[in-house]
Amino acid sequence: MVIVIQCADKVGLVATIAMLLQNQELNIVSMREHVDTVQNRFFARVEISKNVDATILEKQLKEVLPTDAEVIVNPNPLKKVVVLVTKEYHCLSDLLIRNHFNTLGATVLAVIGNHSTLQDICNRFDMPFHLISHEGKAKDDFEIELIAKINLYTPDYIVLAKFMRILSPTFVERYPLRLINIHHSFLPAFIGANPYRQAYERGVKLIGATAHFVTNQLDEGPIIAQQIISVNHSFTTADMVKSGKEIETSVLAKALQLVFDDKVLVHQNKTVVFE
Amino acid sequence: MVIVIQCADKVGLVATIAMLLQNQELNIVSMREHVDTVQNRFFARVEISKNVDATILEKQLKEVLPTDAEVIVNPNPLKKVVVLVTKEYHCLSDLLIRNHFNTLGATVLAVIGNHSTLQDICNRFDMPFHLISHEGKAKDDFEIELIAKINLYTPDYIVLAKFMRILSPTFVERYPLRLINIHHSFLPAFIGANPYRQAYERGVKLIGATAHFVTNQLDEGPIIAQQIISVNHSFTTADMVKSGKEIETSVLAKALQLVFDDKVLVHQNKTVVFE
Amino acid sequence: MVIVIQCADKVGLVATIAMLLQNQELNIVSMREHVDTVQNRFFARVEISKNVDATILEKQLKEVLPTDAEVIVNPNPLKKVVVLVTKEYHCLSDLLIRNHFNTLGATVLAVIGNHSTLQDICNRFDMPFHLISHEGKAKDDFEIELIAKINLYTPDYIVLAKFMRILSPTFVERYPLRLINIHHSFLPAFIGANPYRQAYERGVKLIGATAHFVTNQLDEGPIIAQQIISVNHSFTTADMVKSGKEIETSVLAKALQLVFDDKVLVHQNKTVVFE
Amino acid sequence: MVIVIQCADKVGLVATIAMLLQNQELNIVSMREHVDTVQNRFFARVEISKNVDATILEKQLKEVLPTDAEVIVNPNPLKKVVVLVTKEYHCLSDLLIRNHFNTLGATVLAVIGNHSTLQDICNRFDMPFHLISHEGKAKDDFEIELIAKINLYTPDYIVLAKFMRILSPTFVERYPLRLINIHHSFLPAFIGANPYRQAYERGVKLIGATAHFVTNQLDEGPIIAQQIISVNHSFTTADMVKSGKEIETSVLAKALQLVFDDKVLVHQNKTVVFE
Repeated sequence: MVIVIQCADKVGLVATIAMLLQNQELNIVSMREHVDTVQNRFFARVEISKNVDATILEKQLKEVLPTDAEVIVNPNPLKKVVVLVTKEYHCLSDLLIRNHFNTLGATVLAVIGNHSTLQDICNRFDMPFHLISHEGKAKDDFEIELIAKINLYTPDYIVLAKFMRILSPTFVERYPLRLINIHHSFLPAFIGANPYRQAYERGVKLIGATAHFVTNQLDEGPIIAQQIISVNHSFTTADMVKSGKEIETSVLAKALQLVFDDKVLVHQNKTVVFE
Repeated sequence: MVIVIQCADKVGLVATIAMLLQNQELNIVSMREHVDTVQNRFFARVEISKNVDATILEKQLKEVLPTDAEVIVNPNPLKKVVVLVTKEYHCLSDLLIRNHFNTLGATVLAVIGNHSTLQDICNRFDMPFHLISHEGKAKDDFEIELIAKINLYTPDYIVLAKFMRILSPTFVERYPLRLINIHHSFLPAFIGANPYRQAYERGVKLIGATAHFVTNQLDEGPIIAQQIISVNHSFTTADMVKSGKEIETSVLAKALQLVFDDKVLVHQNKTVVFE
Repeated sequence: MVIVIQCADKVGLVATIAMLLQNQELNIVSMREHVDTVQNRFFARVEISKNVDATILEKQLKEVLPTDAEVIVNPNPLKKVVVLVTKEYHCLSDLLIRNHFNTLGATVLAVIGNHSTLQDICNRFDMPFHLISHEGKAKDDFEIELIAKINLYTPDYIVLAKFMRILSPTFVERYPLRLINIHHSFLPAFIGANPYRQAYERGVKLIGATAHFVTNQLDEGPIIAQQIISVNHSFTTADMVKSGKEIETSVLAKALQLVFDDKVLVHQNKTVVFE
Repeated sequence: MVIVIQCADKVGLVATIAMLLQNQELNIVSMREHVDTVQNRFFARVEISKNVDATILEKQLKEVLPTDAEVIVNPNPLKKVVVLVTKEYHCLSDLLIRNHFNTLGATVLAVIGNHSTLQDICNRFDMPFHLISHEGKAKDDFEIELIAKINLYTPDYIVLAKFMRILSPTFVERYPLRLINIHHSFLPAFIGANPYRQAYERGVKLIGATAHFVTNQLDEGPIIAQQIISVNHSFTTADMVKSGKEIETSVLAKALQLVFDDKVLVHQNKTVVFE
């Protein structure tokens, strides 16, 4: 069972938490604690060996911790996920395979696409696929449809697995720290469109990908994971796109694993990742 | 200030430690805790924001912890180090540079070589160099000379920076967990002589290096750090040796940094590295 | 169009090849040449911009090159592949996805399993799956069945995607340099069974995987690609297995891409990889 | 002996080069050829096993190649280098060590600093150090002094090893493709001042460094090599600077090795690196 806590820092927080657990005979298997001394912020992730009632433990912890404390005792055996896609298959396929073989650390409940391209691969895994086209619709109307469909599944997280529409602030604000995106570049380099063409033209020797929470600053949300892959002069833009897909698939999988294992805490625009 | 603790695991250890620190108004800046559930062993590293009397705090912690607990409160601003070398310059030079510019996290007090090759580079940094040749001597006699010279400096650690003599069990037992070696392979591959020739003949695509504590099992001591570097068919054995030197230099530097920052705990033949 | 050549080295080989191509107005888009000066062996890979009759060009090249020259002019738009599996899904699923979306650089014609575990995932991709159990059969008889089934498809390559039976010399000799295996370790470390348990017990900080051609020296065939992934003290054997699967999937995909792009030449027990 | 050629592409260039070498009984040990089909540009690097008169061979090649061909037959056993520095020791020290032990692949003739900080480390290696302060001088006058001092040594390359002054177009144009800089970021991310502070504030998980030729587009010259290193939430800006120094040292060393081995060809704003 996992406990995740953050609050303003003060002396004695670890003792407070540890005493409460000890009094209930709960053994700490793993403890990660970090104080951001610039922000004066305390972050902790505690793994205990026994499962107890999450709501009660959460309440007990809040009673002994400062009033601003955010406490999450992991109540879900598996997170629930809805995936948004457009046409590219690589990230979605990887998630479908992991979901199918129960190694994702979460349950994908449905896929929503604004094109029908990926309906077939979803069908092959008996995964509900909903086509919600953006064409001929005002952005607001498109998003209202999206929201209605997403909310049917009450997901913990919404994964943008190469979803190529920019979401409005209204949409984003509905799902604070629950929207996870894979961005096709080593942020903050090559923000915006055609990053691989930009990379090709710049003649870079590495390309990267970034998984991040979505906030209303486009491509500026808290970074969860980043990876890179080597490229060279022989790579065409198409080759870079291909290598980029490999690294996008890999970094999204890694970021989701971290999030689903409750290893990612967010404060303002940065993550604490207890890897 | 850093506190490092290990002992058999039981409920309440974190609370015990945290309470003691809280009672002294010591703020925990960083806490890493790990329980090896196979060995039922508790490991912790705690960084506190204030410096207090190390001996007293160590005593206080031992009083409240199980009797088998190993407690180290970092008493040294800088670890003291003696380096043993033979003829290869790359690791030693890197240590001399870092030592010279005070970024090693330790103080190199002297270098001992069984050849005079590296005397000159030591002289350039005003570093005492002692030549203790092994030639024409029984191993015992050679090691008695080594020990006498080393002990003059009462070092915390002895770094074997490409020291090419095999040390006897008697020698090794004198410095338990204080001897750090850089091994020219991705252990446990290519144990023994000429690892790069072996690597060349096997046609590997990666070569590695391993920094480890020395125990009496040759090349079998607890591993601190490992890194690899890509090679390909165009590499001759000499090219592999050259690449190997780069990676040896880098991995030894990294391992020493971890050790000097008190981030490496050892139990039996394995390390816990709170990176 | 790709031309791959190897032979004993002598002066003028590049000129001979280039002249022949020039006389046919064939433009060289990319040329990689390597001479192994230890073995006195010439290796070349030439990409030309136009497609011509492969059989004729191969014949023409052989006429002007030394008699021992091995010349392959890539005659296949896509290599044909049969995959052998046991129970583990990760490598096979990745190949099925890439095959399904036409990005494998080859065509998977069928999967043969010695267990039925992976029948379902094959069915989902309309991929022929043949169950050939080894149970209650002499090894010879099992392999005769395998060979009969494989040969129905006349594959260019047979990929052992976590196929957990050791193949006999008779079997291996039938498919020289056409059997590709993914080995669950950073060869030559941890040869044999339970590599991840061995890695766990040794306390390594990196684990690896190796894709190689199969020869009759178990785990000793020419290495095509190797990759590693970081692990640490918090990894259980099960965690190492999980990380190992990620790296196995990745390194097999990379090796196959290199082989299918005719970038891998083999001489004796080593590869030349024109990456 | 190394031959480096670039020109507009046409059929038969490889044959032309190879025939000329064959006629002189020169054996090609290694050949790398690349055609940039977007730019229609031919690049080649040929290693031959014998040393001949470079000027004559260069002339012979130019006679048979297109008139626009740039041909360099490596005439120098060792490139001559002048290093420019400010106050940071890490890159310079690494170059001094490699130079001292004759493994740099070049000869450092002198170091010029705009501060005296690094005079001492140069003295220790008997390396001429010239202090040319920029203080109280117009940029033009400062650069005139620099140029006068540099030109005394007629260097092949000028390495900016953390030289923190921006050079004027006039200066840069004097040394086309002969100025090599190490840039403290994964270009094109974090262009400009304080990249590590920017990286810290953005909460990135990787930081990088870029070695590149200097052109008049600040931080925009052709990239030679890039590397990255992992960072995490526990890194302060100072920690990022420290990690950055490790990667800067490493990537500059790698880039210089490639340049000194004549493996880097430049066309417009991109490099072809025959690694």
